[in-house]
Amino acid sequence: MKLSAEQLQQFERDVYLFFPGLFKPEEIKVLTDEVPALYAQRCPENVRERTGDVVRTNFAAHLYSYPFAKLARHPRMVKPISQVFGEDVYMHQFKINGKQAFDGDVWQWHQDYGTWRNDDQMPEARAMNVAIFLDEVNEYNGPLMLIPGSHKRGVLDAQHDTSTTSYPLWVITHEVIKKLIDSGGIVAPKGPAGSMILFHGCLVHASSANLSPWNRVSVYLSLCAVSNHIRRFKRPGYIAHRDFTPIQCLPDDCLLKHYEVALPWKDRFFEPVRKAS
Amino acid sequence: MKLSAEQLQQFERDVYLFFPGLFKPEEIKVLTDEVPALYAQRCPENVRERTGDVVRTNFAAHLYSYPFAKLARHPRMVKPISQVFGEDVYMHQFKINGKQAFDGDVWQWHQDYGTWRNDDQMPEARAMNVAIFLDEVNEYNGPLMLIPGSHKRGVLDAQHDTSTTSYPLWVITHEVIKKLIDSGGIVAPKGPAGSMILFHGCLVHASSANLSPWNRVSVYLSLCAVSNHIRRFKRPGYIAHRDFTPIQCLPDDCLLKHYEVALPWKDRFFEPVRKAS
Repeated sequence: MKLSAEQLQQFERDVYLFFPGLFKPEEIKVLTDEVPALYAQRCPENVRERTGDVVRTNFAAHLYSYPFAKLARHPRMVKPISQVFGEDVYMHQFKINGKQAFDGDVWQWHQDYGTWRNDDQMPEARAMNVAIFLDEVNEYNGPLMLIPGSHKRGVLDAQHDTSTTSYPLWVITHEVIKKLIDSGGIVAPKGPAGSMILFHGCLVHASSANLSPWNRVSVYLSLCAVSNHIRRFKRPGYIAHRDFTPIQCLPDDCLLKHYEVALPWKDRFFEPVRKAS
Repeated sequence: MKLSAEQLQQFERDVYLFFPGLFKPEEIKVLTDEVPALYAQRCPENVRERTGDVVRTNFAAHLYSYPFAKLARHPRMVKPISQVFGEDVYMHQFKINGKQAFDGDVWQWHQDYGTWRNDDQMPEARAMNVAIFLDEVNEYNGPLMLIPGSHKRGVLDAQHDTSTTSYPLWVITHEVIKKLIDSGGIVAPKGPAGSMILFHGCLVHASSANLSPWNRVSVYLSLCAVSNHIRRFKRPGYIAHRDFTPIQCLPDDCLLKHYEVALPWKDRFFEPVRKAS
C-alpha cells in the first residue's frame, strides 16, 4: 500500500486521511475475537472507566497478543506512515480503546504530541496516530472528532486533567478549542469496522460518550520516526515503549495466515494470578 | 396551529413529531437573551453540572421570567398537544436544559412518565414532552436521541441513578435499552434554533455529552391533560407543578408583542440575597 500523490497532498493540507473499510470483515474478526480475553485481565495495562468495571483502554497488546502483534506489523498501516516521514518507524504506543456500549466515557480535546513531548521528550512531531475501527462507527457511539487545521500552531497550551475521566490527560483549554473550531470546524469520520484514520500527532481530537448499545472498540497506534525516538522514560514501558527497532512489515495477508511473531510479555500478561482475580 | 390528519397518523405511529424551524430567529432571541440572567442565580431551581459551575437545568422559569411565561402559553406548542389529548392541558414541568458547550453532561436513557407515575402519581400517560431548541442542534452538541417504538410496552423497569450525573434519574437498564434499539433504532432530530419536537411521555430518550464549543440550550416542557393531573406532591413544587389550571393560549405573536402574564415567583427568584451569592 502506497499513498498516491493526491493522498499525500491531501495529508499535507489536512494532516489526516480516512480509509473506509480498509480491512476486511474476516480480518477484523480475528482481532475482535481476541478483545474479551485481553479486557478480562486485571492489570496495569487495562485502565477501567470511572463508572465501573468496563475497560477504557488496554495498552501494549502487540507484546502479548498474537493477532495484535501481527496488526502492529501490517503493511496497510505501517507503509503509509513510513512514506510520509521518509524513514522507518517504530511503535511508540499501542492501545485498544473500548468506548464500550453504554459505559464508554469521553476523551476531552487533546493533542497526543503534547504529552509525548512533555512526558517522553520526543524531539519533534514526527509521529502519527492510526485509528483502526474494530466496530462500525456511527454518530451515536462516540466517533473520533478531529479539528482540521488544529496542528498548525504546533503544541498548544494544555492542563493536566486528572478528574474528568479515569485516565489523566493533557487537555486543551476551552478558549483555544473554541477558536480552533471557529476556524476549522469538526469532522468525525464514520464507517464500517475495518476503516482506518491516519492523523498527525499535533491534530487536536476528542470523542464523546457512548450511550448506544453498540461497542466502539478501536485500535489506536502511535508510530514514530525512528530517528525521533523518545529521550525520557518517565512513563511506564507499557504506555511509552522503549524499543526503537524499526517495524518489519509482514505480508498483506498476515491477519488471515500464520506468521511467527515475538510475544515477549505474553507469559507475564496472562499469568495465572491475574486470571484468577 | 392544528396538526394535519397525516401528522396525527404519524404521531399515532411514532409518538413523536419534529417541526424544524417552527419559531423564527427573532422569537428565539427573546428567549436566549433571558437565559444568562436565569442561570446566574444560585437557588434550588438551578441544578448545576457535577463538573463545575455550569447550569444543567433550570426549573419553572415560566413562573418568574416574562418571555418564558409567554412561551408557556404559546399556541404553536400548546394547541397540538390539546388536540392529541382531546382536552385542555396544564403545565406539569418547565425546564431550560443547558447542555452547555464543553460541560453539558449526558442524560441517561429514561422515560419521563415513569417518574411522573412513581413520584407524582400521575394516573395515566396522558402527558407530552415538548423540546424547543434555543440553539442549533447538530451531531456534535449532544442532540436528543429517541428510540422509536419504545413507548409500546408502557412503563419500563428503571433504577434510580443518583451517581452518574448531578441530577437523580430513573434510568432504564442496558438490557432493555439494547432490545428496544435492536427493534426501533435511534433517531436524533437536528435542526436550527426554533425547531420543536413533540414526544410522548413514554418514549425512551437520552442525550450524550456536549464537547463542542456550541451551547445546546433547549426548553423542555411537559404538558399533562387536566383530568390526568398528579395526585401526590412529593417532589418540590418548582419541579412538579401543583397548579392544574388549563393553559390559556396567547396569540401567535406573543413572543414579539407585549401581553400581560402573571409572574408569581418573580420576586422570590430574583431576590437580592440570591443575586449577591
